[in-house]
Amino acid sequence: MSVLQQAADARIAAIELAAATRAEKDAALLLMAERLVERADDIVAANAVDVANARTGGSADAMIDRLTLTAERVAAMADGLRQLAALPDPVGDVVRGSTLANGLELRQVRVPFGVVGIIYEGRPNVTADAAGICLKSGNAALLRGSGSAMSSNAAIVSVLRKAVADAGLPADAVQLLDASSRDSVKELMRARGLVDVLIPRGGASLIKTVVEESTVPVIETGVGNCHVYVDEAADLEKALAVVLNSKTQRLSTCNTAESLLVHAALVDTFLPLVVEELVNAGVTVHGDPRVAQLSGVVPATDDDWGREYLSADISVAVVDSLDDALDHIRTYGTGHTEAIVSESVTATRRFAARVDAAAVMINASTRFTDGGEFGFGAEIGISTQKLHARGPMGLPELTSTKYVVTGNGHTR
Amino acid sequence: MSVLQQAADARIAAIELAAATRAEKDAALLLMAERLVERADDIVAANAVDVANARTGGSADAMIDRLTLTAERVAAMADGLRQLAALPDPVGDVVRGSTLANGLELRQVRVPFGVVGIIYEGRPNVTADAAGICLKSGNAALLRGSGSAMSSNAAIVSVLRKAVADAGLPADAVQLLDASSRDSVKELMRARGLVDVLIPRGGASLIKTVVEESTVPVIETGVGNCHVYVDEAADLEKALAVVLNSKTQRLSTCNTAESLLVHAALVDTFLPLVVEELVNAGVTVHGDPRVAQLSGVVPATDDDWGREYLSADISVAVVDSLDDALDHIRTYGTGHTEAIVSESVTATRRFAARVDAAAVMINASTRFTDGGEFGFGAEIGISTQKLHARGPMGLPELTSTKYVVTGNGHTR
Repeated sequence: MSVLQQAADARIAAIELAAATRAEKDAALLLMAERLVERADDIVAANAVDVANARTGGSADAMIDRLTLTAERVAAMADGLRQLAALPDPVGDVVRGSTLANGLELRQVRVPFGVVGIIYEGRPNVTADAAGICLKSGNAALLRGSGSAMSSNAAIVSVLRKAVADAGLPADAVQLLDASSRDSVKELMRARGLVDVLIPRGGASLIKTVVEESTVPVIETGVGNCHVYVDEAADLEKALAVVLNSKTQRLSTCNTAESLLVHAALVDTFLPLVVEELVNAGVTVHGDPRVAQLSGVVPATDDDWGREYLSADISVAVVDSLDDALDHIRTYGTGHTEAIVSESVTATRRFAARVDAAAVMINASTRFTDGGEFGFGAEIGISTQKLHARGPMGLPELTSTKYVVTGNGHTR
Repeated sequence: MSVLQQAADARIAAIELAAATRAEKDAALLLMAERLVERADDIVAANAVDVANARTGGSADAMIDRLTLTAERVAAMADGLRQLAALPDPVGDVVRGSTLANGLELRQVRVPFGVVGIIYEGRPNVTADAAGICLKSGNAALLRGSGSAMSSNAAIVSVLRKAVADAGLPADAVQLLDASSRDSVKELMRARGLVDVLIPRGGASLIKTVVEESTVPVIETGVGNCHVYVDEAADLEKALAVVLNSKTQRLSTCNTAESLLVHAALVDTFLPLVVEELVNAGVTVHGDPRVAQLSGVVPATDDDWGREYLSADISVAVVDSLDDALDHIRTYGTGHTEAIVSESVTATRRFAARVDAAAVMINASTRFTDGGEFGFGAEIGISTQKLHARGPMGLPELTSTKYVVTGNGHTR
C-alpha cells in the first residue's frame, strides 16, 4: 500500500481517535501491553530474523545488542504502555479561557494534531513507545522504522493494531510504513494535508534532509553539541562532578556534554584537575593551545569545536570571560543544552538570559535534559527548534489547540 | 545590502533585544509613536510617491485607498504602538515550573524567537504594527512589504529605527528588506539559522510558495473558507443574524463566511428566508440543486464549494444531517473558522469536538475570530496551521520557551 493511502486511512482513524475518551484510550493501551506480553515469543522469533540478517550483514555488536529483543525487553515495552495509561490525557485541557466583554465564552482547548509521522532508527522498542504516545495524545501514528528492524516492527505493529481494534478504536491509528527503501520517507515528507507533523528521530543527516525537503511541518530533534562552562566563581567540587557526569554518564546521548569551557582564572587550579580526571575516566581531551600544554591532551583542530562526538572525546577551551563563553556557545552550540557552574547570581543570571538553547543548566549536569528526568512520564524526543516545542517533548507537545467560542446569537 | 547580511545584523540586535526589560521596550515603543506623529508630513509626502505610481500603473480605487496615508492614519499607527506599550510583556513568563524529586528547580520560561521575518502586502500601516509587535515580544523584525508601498515603508522604517536607537535599543531590531524584486523573498526563505520564523501574510499563492519553498520554519496564516452550519435545532432568529453578520459585516476578511450549510429540516422554513435576506443584502447566492429552486439563486458549480470568495458571494448547500455538514466541512474547509447555530447541546458538542479548525463558533458570527475581538490587544495574523500557534496570534505566540534548571552540583 502506498504511503499516501496509509496516510489517508490514518486521517479517517484520527477523526475517531480525536473523539475518544481517556478511558477508551487507556483501555487500548493496557490491552496493547497485555497482548505484547502474550505474544512475546512471536515477537522475539520475528526479531531473530532481523538479528540474523544484521549478523550476516556484519553489523557491529553494539548495533546488534540494540536491535535484539528478549522476553524481558518486550515486557519493558509493555510496562512503558502501562505507564502511558497512567498519565493524564492532554486532550481537552483548557489552556486559556475567559468571558469576553460582550458575553462570548472563549476557551482554548488542547486537541490532537491528527496524523503524526515518526521516522526513527535503532531499537524496535521505539515502535511500541511511539505508537503508545501518539495514541494517548489522540494522534494516529505513521511509523517509519529502521530497515534493519523490519521483521520485528511488523510483528509488534501487528499485535498492537489487533489490540487497538479489540479495544474498540480504529486499527489504522497505528500503521507501519515500508522501510525497505527511502521512498516511503520521501512520500511521507510530501504528504502535506494528510500528515500534520513529522518528527525525525535519528542522526544529523536524516534530520537535515527532512527539515530541508519536507513540506509537512517538522519538529526537529536531537543534535546536541552541549557545553559546560566553568565560571571563575564556580565551586570546583561541584564543577568537577558536573563536568564528569555530563561527559561520562552516558556517551552516546544528545544531552551528553561534548565541550568544556573553563574560565582563564582557573587555568592553574581547576583545569589540570578536570583534565586529569577526564583522562583517567578514559576520555580523550581535545584542547586549545592553553589546554594542550597539559599532559595527555590532544591539540584540538578547528573541526573539534563544532563536533557532536557521541564518544569518549571532549573538546576543552579556556575563555577569558563569561561573555567569551557565550560567544563560543553562540558560534558552536546547537541550541540543545548549555550548562554553567558558578556560585555567582550575576553570572548565572546573565548566562541563563543570553544562552539561546532549549535548556540551560545551572550547577547541574547536561544529562538532566530529558522527559523522564523532567517528570513528563513520556518523551517522544527532544526538540532543538523554537517553533511549537523546545526541549523534551511530552504528551502536551503532541497536541495543537482549538478555540471554542460560545455565544447566544452574537454578531459584530 | 543582501538579505543575509541584514539577517545577520538582526541576529546581533536580537541578542540585545532578548535581554531588554519591558520598561526599555515600552519606552522605545512610545518614542516610536511620538516620532511617527512628529514626522507625519514626511511620511505622507513619501506615501504620495507610492500613490502617484499606483495611479500611473492604473491601480483600482480600493487599492489606492488602502495604500494612502494621511496625518490621521499615521496618528492611528502611533496609537497602535502606544497600545502595544500598555500590553504585558510575554518574555519572562514562567509557563511551567516545579521542583523535581531530586531538588532541581525546573522553570519553562518564555523567550523571544530571535529574528522574525514578515512578508506582507497591502497597507503601509502594517509596517509599524509588525515592527511594534516584534519589538514588544523581543524579536528583531525583517519586514518585507509590498513593492507598491516601498517609498512609504522606507520613510516609516527610517523614523522607527531612529527612535529605537534613541531609546537605547539596537536600530537593527527593525529592518526593511528590498521589495523591488522577488529575490528578497527567496533569500529570506533560505536564511535558515539566521531567521527563526517566517510569517507570510497575504494571498493564498504567496502563502503556498513560502510553505513549500522555505527552509525557515513558517507560520501559515489566513486562508479562510469559513462555513456556517444551521442545525435543525437552531433558533432561526439567531441563525439569520449570525449568517448575515458572518457574510456581510465585512466582505474581504479571512474570517468572513463563504459557505452556508442548512439542515434539510429547514428547507421550507429557514432556507427561503435566509436566501431572501442575503439577496436583499446584495449577496449572490450560489446554491446546490435544492437551493437553486429559490428565486435569485445562481446554481453552484463544483468549484464554488472550495472558494474563498472575499466578495459579495456565498455558496449554500442543504445537508441531511450534522454529520453530513461535518463531512462537507472536512472536504472543503481550510481549518480557519467554522460556526454552528443550534440550541442542542448534543449537536454543538459533537460539532465542536469533530470540526478540525482553529476556531469553532457556537451561536456566534465567524467574524469574531480576531485577536482584537479575543482580547489579545495585538495580532500578527491568524494561523491556520496546527504547529506552534493556531488561530489569532498575539504577543505570546511570537515567543518560544527555554527550560532553566537550577541545581547545586546535581548529577545523574
